[in-house]
Amino acid sequence: MSEFSSNFDQRMRALLGENGWLKGQAELDAYGRDWLKRYGETPIGIARPGSTAEVAAVVRLAAQHGVTISPQGGNTGLNGGSVLGAGDRGIILSLARMNRLVSVDPIDFTATVEAGVVLAALHAALEEQLLCFPLHLGAEGSAQIGGLISTNAGGSHAMRYGMMQDLVLGLEVVLPDGAIWNGARALIKDNAGYQLRRLFCGAEGTLGIVTRAVLRLFPAPRGKATALLALDSLATAQTIGAFLRARAGEFVAAMEFFTEIGLALALKHVGGLTRPLETAGPVYLLVELTTSIEEMALDDILERALAACFEAGTVVDGAIAANETQRAAFWRLREEMPEGQRLEGAQIKHDVAAPVARLASFVAAASTAAEAVLPGVRINPFGHLGDGNVHFNLSPPAGQSDFAGREALLSEAIYDAAVAHDGTISAEHGLGQAKVALANRYRSATERDLMRRIKTSLDPANRMNPGKVV
Amino acid sequence: MSEFSSNFDQRMRALLGENGWLKGQAELDAYGRDWLKRYGETPIGIARPGSTAEVAAVVRLAAQHGVTISPQGGNTGLNGGSVLGAGDRGIILSLARMNRLVSVDPIDFTATVEAGVVLAALHAALEEQLLCFPLHLGAEGSAQIGGLISTNAGGSHAMRYGMMQDLVLGLEVVLPDGAIWNGARALIKDNAGYQLRRLFCGAEGTLGIVTRAVLRLFPAPRGKATALLALDSLATAQTIGAFLRARAGEFVAAMEFFTEIGLALALKHVGGLTRPLETAGPVYLLVELTTSIEEMALDDILERALAACFEAGTVVDGAIAANETQRAAFWRLREEMPEGQRLEGAQIKHDVAAPVARLASFVAAASTAAEAVLPGVRINPFGHLGDGNVHFNLSPPAGQSDFAGREALLSEAIYDAAVAHDGTISAEHGLGQAKVALANRYRSATERDLMRRIKTSLDPANRMNPGKVV
Repeated sequence: MSEFSSNFDQRMRALLGENGWLKGQAELDAYGRDWLKRYGETPIGIARPGSTAEVAAVVRLAAQHGVTISPQGGNTGLNGGSVLGAGDRGIILSLARMNRLVSVDPIDFTATVEAGVVLAALHAALEEQLLCFPLHLGAEGSAQIGGLISTNAGGSHAMRYGMMQDLVLGLEVVLPDGAIWNGARALIKDNAGYQLRRLFCGAEGTLGIVTRAVLRLFPAPRGKATALLALDSLATAQTIGAFLRARAGEFVAAMEFFTEIGLALALKHVGGLTRPLETAGPVYLLVELTTSIEEMALDDILERALAACFEAGTVVDGAIAANETQRAAFWRLREEMPEGQRLEGAQIKHDVAAPVARLASFVAAASTAAEAVLPGVRINPFGHLGDGNVHFNLSPPAGQSDFAGREALLSEAIYDAAVAHDGTISAEHGLGQAKVALANRYRSATERDLMRRIKTSLDPANRMNPGKVV
Repeated sequence: MSEFSSNFDQRMRALLGENGWLKGQAELDAYGRDWLKRYGETPIGIARPGSTAEVAAVVRLAAQHGVTISPQGGNTGLNGGSVLGAGDRGIILSLARMNRLVSVDPIDFTATVEAGVVLAALHAALEEQLLCFPLHLGAEGSAQIGGLISTNAGGSHAMRYGMMQDLVLGLEVVLPDGAIWNGARALIKDNAGYQLRRLFCGAEGTLGIVTRAVLRLFPAPRGKATALLALDSLATAQTIGAFLRARAGEFVAAMEFFTEIGLALALKHVGGLTRPLETAGPVYLLVELTTSIEEMALDDILERALAACFEAGTVVDGAIAANETQRAAFWRLREEMPEGQRLEGAQIKHDVAAPVARLASFVAAASTAAEAVLPGVRINPFGHLGDGNVHFNLSPPAGQSDFAGREALLSEAIYDAAVAHDGTISAEHGLGQAKVALANRYRSATERDLMRRIKTSLDPANRMNPGKVV
């Protein structure tokens, strides 16, 4: 060990204690690699500060020693945003110990939380108070608020409640120079300058470390109605989606879709699932209405709206969940899409989006293009009809174990199609280190330059999560 | 006229034509001064470009001649944000000619508009298509989309739909160097880098000129229910507000408040108003529910929720609007608050906010402090209970025509109270040139420095609306 790193080491240990500065190989592996084990150079160590002041002290100490910092929440990201990149001489800063739910205000409809609070723990804590925080996604059992903010998480309810940036009222952030910006205000309206609170949402830790947030809450749902429909096409799903938004208006909380290919994979590999309808897809639409009004007859509202769709001949088959068990079963089908595909073997994931009105034509174009690159490739698009976000995932042709070296060409075909449909190469997973080159390719030089200017203005030495986003 | 300005003049006229480059005294006055005639140094001229390319050309030409640019929408701002500041050698760039509603997509629920589209014109155009853009504020007959974006406008429906930044999906912006950033994407989820679309919301033209936007739409309301309540205190209004949010949940679109003082001034000065309830305030709460579901019995839902409030003894008096005329009459009382006070004579306006749960205690503390500065000062707070935004306005003591030189002390007392209640010195009107010193005083050096860094990184020569925000 060089004199330098020994000195840095000693100071970090003195600052954070044995429990706050980890150097064991198991910990370097656990925190240092992303959960899909695709990204992450070995860090110098893992800092686990217990307070904002300690985070600031770590940032200053790292700066003095020329060490970079990659902030990490639940380490559930898919693009390597919370682990080190190639050539980094840096540490991981885990917010896991800062997991206090500071306060909940039922008049304000706000919660103040430390960055390390796990999303599912927040959900559970609010339930008793008849309040909810309406962000829902697959990783909610591990994902932390700070990471969700830094990646501007979306999930299945974004069509109604927005993304993380729409749910954050205030933030406390430790800046690259170690200063603490205290913007943790519980204000819906605060136009005293640039909307910094929004800038840090989705910055992936490249502009500072989110340590605390004030979040918007909503009344807890007292009623739900959930339907699963089998449809002839994604175009039909789009039409029904717009129709339901008008007919069931304020209540529509989620509109999720998947296909027969995805359903078959899930039924094949994941235990405890059953085919939900007599008729097979090819496309399935999961619709959920929620309300905080106890006496509201949501099932009736959903049934009336769907009856009109049946009359118009656009629905092949469908069912409204008769009870909580059936509701959970419908949702589980959607949620097990990634697991079903993973267990099938090799896969390529793409988190893309198109305008809602162009979703079906994007999926058709991308499918044609992928088929041209690798005939027989199994195309498994699923995701969020309400906001245009598709997880456009691929499995090799039946009977083959890999993509025959066509991975890059397949991805290119899909990103090309997304951009040709005025869509995006990253909808809700961010850029991390995986997609920086894609952003440089598909976004204008003007846009990339704007981002680099902002990055340089706040972090001139490029110490905060280098190589991510810009 | 110097050779320089003659040259600049000629080039501007050549670029924009007679109708696009105005130099007449009447026009310099009309565009050059804010609508309350409190701010605005005389500009060199008024540029009225007809396209984004022309805006970019103006920006480049102004840069070559060392001329600053103040972008202007409907010129309805209250803080001098869209006119020149002291010492500026600049032009006004009006977006008024760029007023095309480019497209509306009923599947996407989006509208693409040029910056100069007037808000009320957008409302009218969407009505036929059973769609709505849910931003509502007093100036909607003049305010333009670009200005509303640049000031991150709020208004009376922000509690449900958010502020302008929550309603903007994509933007096209002419940057300080004349480059055009085309971020006018119709995507709810787009995490391919920093959320630039949000940064330009509320930047007041200091980082660039918004030329085009993609806005989120919603299904048009098919049903409304509106109640006006007389209450014993603002604290009661707060409690009822939280209760209604839980009981009438998704439907609550606006909760506005005013006081007996404001009502009396409006009744005294504004024609066509009548006292709405048998019992007088002292506090009035206007509640509106809206729904896009045609058959929804909103009046019943509102009545049931209010009945519970009456039972709890918290409501003094109240009425649900029986028809559109009565609904409009209720709203007009709230909307004429500024006019009633203006016609009474001298006034001081403050656009502040506190967390919703601290609104009543803020108003009480600010009132006590103002009374201490000038005994008998008439305190007329009104605004948005649902989001904590108070227009805390003052009239001189009865029988006096001015504030006896205490204006600055009164304002200081009110801003001090807002900040002491974790509130803000500017809720929805921005900083403009009027409130920059206030922001420097009440916000941390760290926060102000962050904003200055961003400004400098995008506009190093300080040519875009200098002296505003930072």
